[in-house]
Amino acid sequence: VKTVSELGEHRVVDSILAVLRKQAKPAIPFGDDVSAVKLDRGKLLILKTDTMVWDTDVPPGMTARQAGRKALVMNVSDLAAKGVKPLAAVVSLSIPSSTSIDEVLSIIKGLEDGAKEYGLEIIGGDTGEAPTIVLSISMAGIADKGTIILRSGAKVGDIVATTGPFGNTAAALAITLNGLEAPHMLKLKLLRSIYKPKARLREGLVLASLKAATSSIDSSDGLAWSLHELSRMSNVGFKITNVPIAPEAEAFARIHGLNPLNLALYGGEEYELVLTIKPELFDKAAASVRSVGGELIKMGVAISERRVIVDYQGKLHEVEAKGWEHFTSKHLPRN
Amino acid sequence: VKTVSELGEHRVVDSILAVLRKQAKPAIPFGDDVSAVKLDRGKLLILKTDTMVWDTDVPPGMTARQAGRKALVMNVSDLAAKGVKPLAAVVSLSIPSSTSIDEVLSIIKGLEDGAKEYGLEIIGGDTGEAPTIVLSISMAGIADKGTIILRSGAKVGDIVATTGPFGNTAAALAITLNGLEAPHMLKLKLLRSIYKPKARLREGLVLASLKAATSSIDSSDGLAWSLHELSRMSNVGFKITNVPIAPEAEAFARIHGLNPLNLALYGGEEYELVLTIKPELFDKAAASVRSVGGELIKMGVAISERRVIVDYQGKLHEVEAKGWEHFTSKHLPRN
Repeated sequence: VKTVSELGEHRVVDSILAVLRKQAKPAIPFGDDVSAVKLDRGKLLILKTDTMVWDTDVPPGMTARQAGRKALVMNVSDLAAKGVKPLAAVVSLSIPSSTSIDEVLSIIKGLEDGAKEYGLEIIGGDTGEAPTIVLSISMAGIADKGTIILRSGAKVGDIVATTGPFGNTAAALAITLNGLEAPHMLKLKLLRSIYKPKARLREGLVLASLKAATSSIDSSDGLAWSLHELSRMSNVGFKITNVPIAPEAEAFARIHGLNPLNLALYGGEEYELVLTIKPELFDKAAASVRSVGGELIKMGVAISERRVIVDYQGKLHEVEAKGWEHFTSKHLPRN
Repeated sequence: VKTVSELGEHRVVDSILAVLRKQAKPAIPFGDDVSAVKLDRGKLLILKTDTMVWDTDVPPGMTARQAGRKALVMNVSDLAAKGVKPLAAVVSLSIPSSTSIDEVLSIIKGLEDGAKEYGLEIIGGDTGEAPTIVLSISMAGIADKGTIILRSGAKVGDIVATTGPFGNTAAALAITLNGLEAPHMLKLKLLRSIYKPKARLREGLVLASLKAATSSIDSSDGLAWSLHELSRMSNVGFKITNVPIAPEAEAFARIHGLNPLNLALYGGEEYELVLTIKPELFDKAAASVRSVGGELIKMGVAISERRVIVDYQGKLHEVEAKGWEHFTSKHLPRN
């Protein structure tokens, strides 16, 4: 009998879904960023649950308040990717009995920070005991069936775009998990990317209301993985000609002789949206995203061949379908 | 600085709620069985989250499939107590990397068992790594504001009632946790109460549609605790003249020289509904509950004095506000 570490997270999930598919035909197919059940009048009830486990998911140096906030932001980001406004959240907090009440309340304040930032309410939850802190957030929203952006709608010729640069979180994890160093100001900027991530909620909402995006995913599993997910679920490929690498990640890569492209592709814990946009609506979409204070960066184009390739410094690279994998490794993917 | 074990679960929860109350005014006040946010047209979106932690919440001898099913039933029971039909659930499963895939799939099959029994769909979720198995279920439903049964509506003169007998779970926990013995058939029956609990969903739904119940709670924290919660939140007291003690619990108490009343009052992990019913509607309510295969057992009456007393074998006993407390003790309350 195999253990989950021998199988790896993605094959474990596939086995679970094989069981669940026999019993449920959810309104949004399994494997998208959020789940849904049909209500009347063309509405969907959207549900999302995501869990932060202190032992494995909280990088060294992150405060309890930042961790609480991040747990909430992770969930908002998934709704943002679908263009759904979060209405409310419930929280399940399991803690060791030796936890100080101050730490517990800091986590709750962090949750409130996130809830205030994204305009939703925390309406309830439960507590219990566990050997490490486990914080599960579940979030709900109501959406019109017609406006929700799935992972599966990309068409050949659509423009591949994203809402921000990549690479800083991979650099920050190399600092916190692998002990790499960086000059003080650079280090602060990089660490901020993992300690205080932002969800692209306003961006997701305007893109959904415009009906400009044909597919969308949040990049929490890394840019490479996200592109491959959109590719797999939309049955198209992508040719990427512009990977937006953050200048801080470039500087960090230079210092340590790392490949900045790899930092950008194979990181994770970023909460940008990776989308495909109807070409005729791209300029309008970009203007709308700018109007809410964001940016929409053109990365490439959807192609019929089912592969993900990147044109970087004059050379074509095959992008691998890898990202962070729980169970098999907690370390940074090698360069 | 105090730890959560020094404070105890209920004071930890009070501290958390003090923070949350500053930011949110949920449609159902904090501290009820479920949470809610207002939708349009007088509807409420109901959310519930509850977590099972293998280390502390799964009694010895329970299979993974039973544990998965029970995690789902726990949540259904909370919605049942409010008279709300569960529509869908999402599941967050955190597991040690050494867990076998068979155990994981057994948990999922148990979840499906519960979902089928109570007519809802599991529409999504997430997985991750943790030092022990942590299974969080979040469940949603839509309810009319007018039909939901809170903990706070009991009036003096209302009839206190419940949907089944008490005591078997306390006896079963004495067997599994404290090593007490019982004859084979009795033991099987008692253990069944903790391994295969039932939620009283049909009962809760008919009582809500009749508008017969003025307050309701599920008895998962024990009968005594549940009565005190209804008392506290409704600002009434209760005089109980009939504690329905299960015959198996009586037999078990006789064998071990235990007080059967204490088994019934201070157990927990039962999923009966404890309710107050308008006196003029009691007979109609009882008939409706019978029509869906259940029973509604009269226990006593709501009184103006804010205490919970029980008349047992010709003597009045003060019922203490205690039940299972996480953090401070994992053992059975002493007799």
